[in-house]
Parts: sequence; C-alpha cells; structure tokens
Amino acid sequence: MSIKVIVAGFKGKMGSTAVNMIQGDSDLELAALLDPFATEAEVDGVPVFTDKAALSGFDADVWVDFTMPAVAYENTRFALENGFAPVVGTTGFSESQIAELIDLSAQKKLGGLIAPNFAIGAILLMEFAAKASKYFPDLEIIELHHDKKKDAPSGTAVKTAELIREVRQAKKQGAEDEVETLAGARGAEFDGFRIHSVRLPGLVAHQEVIFGAQGEGLTLRHDSYDRVSFMSGVNLGIKEVVKRDQLVYGLEKLL
Amino acid sequence: MSIKVIVAGFKGKMGSTAVNMIQGDSDLELAALLDPFATEAEVDGVPVFTDKAALSGFDADVWVDFTMPAVAYENTRFALENGFAPVVGTTGFSESQIAELIDLSAQKKLGGLIAPNFAIGAILLMEFAAKASKYFPDLEIIELHHDKKKDAPSGTAVKTAELIREVRQAKKQGAEDEVETLAGARGAEFDGFRIHSVRLPGLVAHQEVIFGAQGEGLTLRHDSYDRVSFMSGVNLGIKEVVKRDQLVYGLEKLL
Amino acid sequence: MSIKVIVAGFKGKMGSTAVNMIQGDSDLELAALLDPFATEAEVDGVPVFTDKAALSGFDADVWVDFTMPAVAYENTRFALENGFAPVVGTTGFSESQIAELIDLSAQKKLGGLIAPNFAIGAILLMEFAAKASKYFPDLEIIELHHDKKKDAPSGTAVKTAELIREVRQAKKQGAEDEVETLAGARGAEFDGFRIHSVRLPGLVAHQEVIFGAQGEGLTLRHDSYDRVSFMSGVNLGIKEVVKRDQLVYGLEKLL
Amino acid sequence: MSIKVIVAGFKGKMGSTAVNMIQGDSDLELAALLDPFATEAEVDGVPVFTDKAALSGFDADVWVDFTMPAVAYENTRFALENGFAPVVGTTGFSESQIAELIDLSAQKKLGGLIAPNFAIGAILLMEFAAKASKYFPDLEIIELHHDKKKDAPSGTAVKTAELIREVRQAKKQGAEDEVETLAGARGAEFDGFRIHSVRLPGLVAHQEVIFGAQGEGLTLRHDSYDRVSFMSGVNLGIKEVVKRDQLVYGLEKLL
Repeated sequence: MSIKVIVAGFKGKMGSTAVNMIQGDSDLELAALLDPFATEAEVDGVPVFTDKAALSGFDADVWVDFTMPAVAYENTRFALENGFAPVVGTTGFSESQIAELIDLSAQKKLGGLIAPNFAIGAILLMEFAAKASKYFPDLEIIELHHDKKKDAPSGTAVKTAELIREVRQAKKQGAEDEVETLAGARGAEFDGFRIHSVRLPGLVAHQEVIFGAQGEGLTLRHDSYDRVSFMSGVNLGIKEVVKRDQLVYGLEKLL
Repeated sequence: MSIKVIVAGFKGKMGSTAVNMIQGDSDLELAALLDPFATEAEVDGVPVFTDKAALSGFDADVWVDFTMPAVAYENTRFALENGFAPVVGTTGFSESQIAELIDLSAQKKLGGLIAPNFAIGAILLMEFAAKASKYFPDLEIIELHHDKKKDAPSGTAVKTAELIREVRQAKKQGAEDEVETLAGARGAEFDGFRIHSVRLPGLVAHQEVIFGAQGEGLTLRHDSYDRVSFMSGVNLGIKEVVKRDQLVYGLEKLL
Repeated sequence: MSIKVIVAGFKGKMGSTAVNMIQGDSDLELAALLDPFATEAEVDGVPVFTDKAALSGFDADVWVDFTMPAVAYENTRFALENGFAPVVGTTGFSESQIAELIDLSAQKKLGGLIAPNFAIGAILLMEFAAKASKYFPDLEIIELHHDKKKDAPSGTAVKTAELIREVRQAKKQGAEDEVETLAGARGAEFDGFRIHSVRLPGLVAHQEVIFGAQGEGLTLRHDSYDRVSFMSGVNLGIKEVVKRDQLVYGLEKLL
Repeated sequence: MSIKVIVAGFKGKMGSTAVNMIQGDSDLELAALLDPFATEAEVDGVPVFTDKAALSGFDADVWVDFTMPAVAYENTRFALENGFAPVVGTTGFSESQIAELIDLSAQKKLGGLIAPNFAIGAILLMEFAAKASKYFPDLEIIELHHDKKKDAPSGTAVKTAELIREVRQAKKQGAEDEVETLAGARGAEFDGFRIHSVRLPGLVAHQEVIFGAQGEGLTLRHDSYDRVSFMSGVNLGIKEVVKRDQLVYGLEKLL
C-alpha cells in the first residue's frame, strides 16, 4: 500500500524536486499537484489544481508544502482539517502559529512535520556535535561556503553553536595570554569557543566541528553539494508522519 | 566532598597514568594504592598495599582496577563485597562472570563499570556512526595506524562495523559491474560495505567513517594520539558509578 | 590585443564549454567555430564552418580542438600548417604522431599543446606527490569516486602512482608480519605502497595522497566536481602557446 | 665511507636529538661533541669538548650546530675556517652575516646550510602552496595548534602567506558585500586572502592551505607531531652539504 501524496507549490524548485523524488519511490504515490501558477490540467496523469479548496475531500494521506510564507499557515491548517498529514518546508511560521497547529493536529490525531531544514546530514551533524560537546568542551567550528555568500558565519554554524551552548559546560578556550598579531585570526567568539568562515569558489556548503582533548581529537564534517540532498529528509518525513498522531517542529524530532 | 579512590595495579602504565589523573582533579582524592609488585610504603602520603585483603573495611568510594586478567574477576568481586564501586579496565571477563558481577552489584546497590575501551572519543564515533548508518546506508570505513601494526583492519574498525551492521539496512554497495584492475583496491568487504586500512610511520590510531548520499556527505573522524586520552573515560566512570546502583558493561552505557 | 581563437568540435560537451569560457574572457576573442554537425551559419556573430578546408588562410592565433580521435591528428597538422597554434584535448595520438607534430611545430616556429588532462589541480597534485615522495617514501593513495564508477583504482590514481614510482626510492611499506584478517583491507599493492578506492553516492572525483614519516605527515588532496574545472587548463594553454615556438605534450610542461 | 660529524650544542634538546639521529644512521659517524655545559669526557666513546678552539685541526666533515644565537655566527665561521661544512639550526644571523658566511664558504669551497626550519614537510607545503597559488589565486590558510600557543596566526602561516604573496596575482577574495555578523568570522586578512587560527588541546602543529576554483579544490596539509620530524631535514642537510661548494640559506635550496 503506497502513501498517497499531494504536493503544494509543485512549480517551484523544491516542489518540483519533491515531485521527482516521489515519482522515483515505489512506496509513494503522487496523488495531486497544487500551484496557483499552474496552467496544465495534469502531469503524467496526476491531476493539477490551482486552488486548494478543490482538494477538500480528496483521497490522500500526506500534504507536502513548498509554497510561500504568506500562505503556509493557511495551507497547513487546511491540510490538517482535511485529514492530510502535512510535511511543510515553507518558512515564516510564528511560534504561536506552530503551537496552534500542533494542538489542531492532536485533536485530529494526525502526524505532521514543519521543518526549516530537511538536510538529514546537517541535522545529524548538529545533534552529534551537541552530544560530543558534553564530553569535549573544547571545540571550534569551521564552515566553508562558495565565495558569493554574503553573511559570515553561516546560519547553520550559528544554529550549531546555539545547540552546543545549551549543553556544553561554559568555558573560555585558548591561552589566557593569547594575542592576535593579525586581527581576526582566531575567528568569531561564541560562548567561549570560535567559529571560522571560509569562502572560496568551487565550494558549496560545508561544516566541520573539531573537538580536542588531551591525546585525542574528534572531527565531524557535513558536505552539502545539491538541493537534492534535502529530499531524503522529505522522504523520511512523509513516511514518519503517517505513523504518528501529532505534528512536530524540526526534522530532528523524527530521527 | 571529594570521591575517595583506590587504584589497584598502580605500578602499571595505565594504573600510574590513572594515579596522575586522580591527583590532578580536585573532585577526586587518592585514598590507597595496591600492587603486588610495590615496595614502597606510601606515595605522596597515600598508603600502599600489596595484598587486597588489607583493604577490607577501608574507607573509600571507588576501586579503579588496571591489573591482570587473572585477578580482575576476584578483584571486582572483592570491591563490591567491600562497598567500593568498581571501575575496571582490566580485560578477560567471561560473559557469565559479568552477569554475576552485575547481580552482585544490584544486591549491594553499588554502581560499577567494566569497560574494554575508555576512549570517549572512540565510543562516541561508534555511536554516531551507527546512528548515521540508519539514514545513510552507503558508507566506507578508513582506519589509519602506524606501520608497525600487524593486523588489518583494526579491532576498533571491526567493532564499529559490527555496530553499524546491527542497525543499517543491509545493502551491497558500489557499482554492480565493478572491477578491480589491481586486487584489493576496493578494500575489505563487510556486510556490503568496505573497510580500508592505511599504515604509515608517524600515524598513531585514527578512524574515519564516510557516508555518502545524493548531494551530500557526512564524515566522522577520531584521532587518538596518546593513552592519556583514556583518562577522561576513567574520570567520567569514577564520577558516574558513585551515582548509580548497578554495574554496567561498556562505557557507552554511561554516555 | 586579444588572442583570436578557433574552436573545432564546438557542438560537443567540451567544445561548447570551451566556447563559453572564451566568450567570458576579455583577453580572448572567438574567431570561428568548426563542427561537421553544425547547421547554423553563425553563433553570436561568429562564423560557423563544417569543413576545416574553408579555414585555410583565416585570421586566427589558436586552434582549440575537442573533436574525435579519428580526425585529431589531421586537424592538428592542418592547424600548424595554417599558422594556428593548436591546443588539443582530443585523445588518440600515437607516439610517432606526437613526435611528428612536435617537429612540424618547430619548423613553423609555432607553440602548441596536446593534453590528455586539462585539470590543473589534478596535474599539480601529481607533480607535488611525486616530489614529496622523494623525501617521504612512505605513502598511500586514497581515491574517492561516485558509486557508478566501474573500475578501481581510478586512472588518475594509477597515473599518480606511476609518476611516484619514477622518482621514489623503492620500498615495501607496512609491517613485515602484517596480516589481513579481512582480505583486501590493506588495499591494492603498487611498487610497495598501497592504493585504496572508495565509492559512494554523492561523491564526484577526489584523490588524496598521504605521506607519513617520524613525527609528521603530509596530505595532498584534489577534489573535482565539474568538467568546468578543465577550462582553467584550456585557458592557460591558449595563453601559453602563443608565447612559444614548439608544441608540447602534457599540460604539466606549461606549469 | 661514512660522513664524520661534530655536534655543537649537544646537551640541548635539538642537539641531543641530532646525536641520536646520527648514531642511528650507518652512513654517518659521530666524530666529536661540543658543549660548554658538558662535564663528561666522552659519550659512547666519542670525545667531548667544552671549547671549540680544541677542535681546530680535528678530522671531521660536517659541523652540526644547535647552540645559542650569541655564538652561532662565530661557530659557523670557525667551522668554515677549519674545513667543516656547517649545518646550522641556531637562529639569530643578520643578513650581512649570512652574506659574509656565504662568501667565506665559496673561498673555502665548502658546502653549508643555515636553516631556520628543518621540517622538510613544512617546507614542501610552503613550496607547493606558493606554486599552486599561481594557478589558483583563491585560497585560505587554516593553521591549527595546541591551546597553550600565545600568538595567532603562527609564524609558519605568516611565512607561507608571504611566499604566496610573492607569486600570486593580487586579489581581494570573498563577496564584495560580505558582512560579518560575528566579528572575526572571516579570519585575518593578508594580501586579500584569509588566515584562520584554531587552538585546541590535543593538537600539536598543523597547517592547511585550501585552494578553490570553478568546479574543483586543492588542499595541502602538513601535520607536525614531534621535534623528531626535524631530523630528516638535518640528515638531508648533512648528506647534501658534503657534495656542495657553497653555503646556502634555507633548507628549500637543497630540495
């Protein structure tokens, strides 16, 4: 019995990548497609809709949503009310909206997932880094991205650092009388440890967390080359939400 | 209130390293030393014994044991019977002996630890690798050691591979029509994945587990340079066993 | 004064990538395009030809050739006879053909380049690895590719190994009494050192050469993600051949 | 015929490590030892001197010097005047002193070496990095050291950066509108590229130079664990100076 999936926002980059992923997995069945910008009536025999209202009562199990922040909350509410377990990659939810949607999912006894990040590898890296920091409080983060990236450090590095801060025993690292003969050499300071941002052509998105202790070292590295990598997280989300009876926020809750 | 520790086997390499570690931690107090080969009466004011019987009724909390396989079982039993929570790095226990000691510890309501490996970093690596293999079933292990090492792959690599096999969905990796033009290039096969052993002067003991998936990669690496690295595991063991009321086998049970 | 370039084989993957590269470099000017399969009369104002004879007497400096082995020799001879310095990525030349073309180029006082590999990074890696092996005879090669690759080790790894063999003092590495408890763990043997081939989804083409000596290590790594990387080698070739008066075989001769 | 070597400063750390290295190489013969702090008359049958004057006319080929800056110039001059080819690791020479000693060596037709750094691996890394920067002008340096190190970046990183600056086409790297949301994230700026300094317990002395270009990357890494690694440079120096007729400054001149 395959899982029947609706994809909302299927004309966008993430949405169309999700369609390909679903078509390539025999455990999943593409049931319907939704996009206000669609002009075709069907794709490979799958019906296309431009207004979500038409999907009320439709036979499907999961609602995958890669739409726009402006409509994501209404879409997710619609999915839950119509019995579709939502798997949402669209951003822009407020905390109170998330709390409301979790309540609604519990009433409806439907699983669901809202995730700002579907990269399983990146999420595992953060989880492992946080756990290791309990035993190895001396660490540094090196994140490496292409040289068109404007901000440093990366959002992922800051998120990783925050997760580490929650569990690591606070500690100011480095020699007490440390001196930078070239300003910035020691990187950005965050809760007593350091973050370094490398920017080079040819790179995509990479992150290393290096731990050091007397006589040993531990290095965790994630390399992200292509948005296709997010699809293993979407796939996992679809297969997990149908087994659950409440929506969760963050893919890490399903790992 | 510091934890009072007896060190059995304090004349050996691991035992003497443990003594140094305990003396350097203000939360721990070296209470007594035991070694049949000792000739001194005391070390830095700490009494030295050559026969464990003399320690019956002694005031201490933890019994650290780095002795010989021939006496480890008797020592651990003695520790439990005398109210000392054992932290044992000596090897050579049978499965039935471990089961017996766990029973005895439960009767005495004493924590304890028997650990074949005290390297926290190596244990975390194995745990992380096993968890990642659930989501990334394509992986290879590269272990790197000094060039005097006789056996390949390393015991740690085989142990890591076994832990992965327990949780990874079985899969034969690589191209179906793969051909080695030089025999051995693809490494050793284990449950469908590959293990590679590098041997070079200058290296000590290192292990990488590399995971690959569409559009991303995850690499976990542990570097071990010195036996001093085991001491953070011994330290953790001492501080954990005094909070518990049953002996466990394997440091991973305390992480 | 920009360098005027003809691209032969411009309808192929490498040829069309070369066209893009030339159009993006203000020091170069696309002068003419040649391909027997072309149907258009011009591309962006650049004249298109289907027969090389029509280019006799044409005003250009360099002939870039990404055609087929069957015509590469004739094309290169034609280029030299007509005063175009050839930069040839097509394969299939015999040693005597190369010798002949070098002679002809010397008579014509024209530079030229025939290169089986235009990846500057890969060529630098080989050159550095060979030089390092003179001082660090203990080394291992790890090459990593996507899991659709059939042959192991890679052609680049074998080429690297051959260049090392030419200069490294012969030595059988590893412990004398080394034992593989899992066959293949120590990799493929080549001239006393080892080559390991990793195959994983998500990887493209990567190579590491690791050197070890008492108290130190040296690691050289090249990562190749995309054929666009070959273009820096083609660009370098174009700019170097116009300064020279004899054809060379191998991009390394121009570095 | 083995090379007869005098070691000046044999009571110091480097000097005594050099003595061990010479005794372990059958191509070398320890001829005499010099140290003003020595009290023994001989070591393993090798005569010990406390005043260099006593070595005038002594039968030896090479003078290895690991003494103090205050005496290094006089020692090297003495060696040359007495027919010993000097291999000097002591620092503190002025440029004019070096020029003088090179002149003197040429008159005496003696080889010689004054080297601030005997780590062949570190020197090869610098040489390779400089060469690669000609073709890959986008690069960053990451140096990693133990957390007792006071200064950042390391002297080796600055030296490497200077060598790169000499040959690399000047270029300001990174996005034009790059913003640090945490100050220092992008590291120290040097001639348009960046240097990052990592400090962690367990590390010794490590350096990576990472190059990026469209579709590819090149990474060069040196790991230094122990001062014993300098000895391969001293050994090479001894064997090379006896073949030469002029002193050089810098081990790279002999590679």
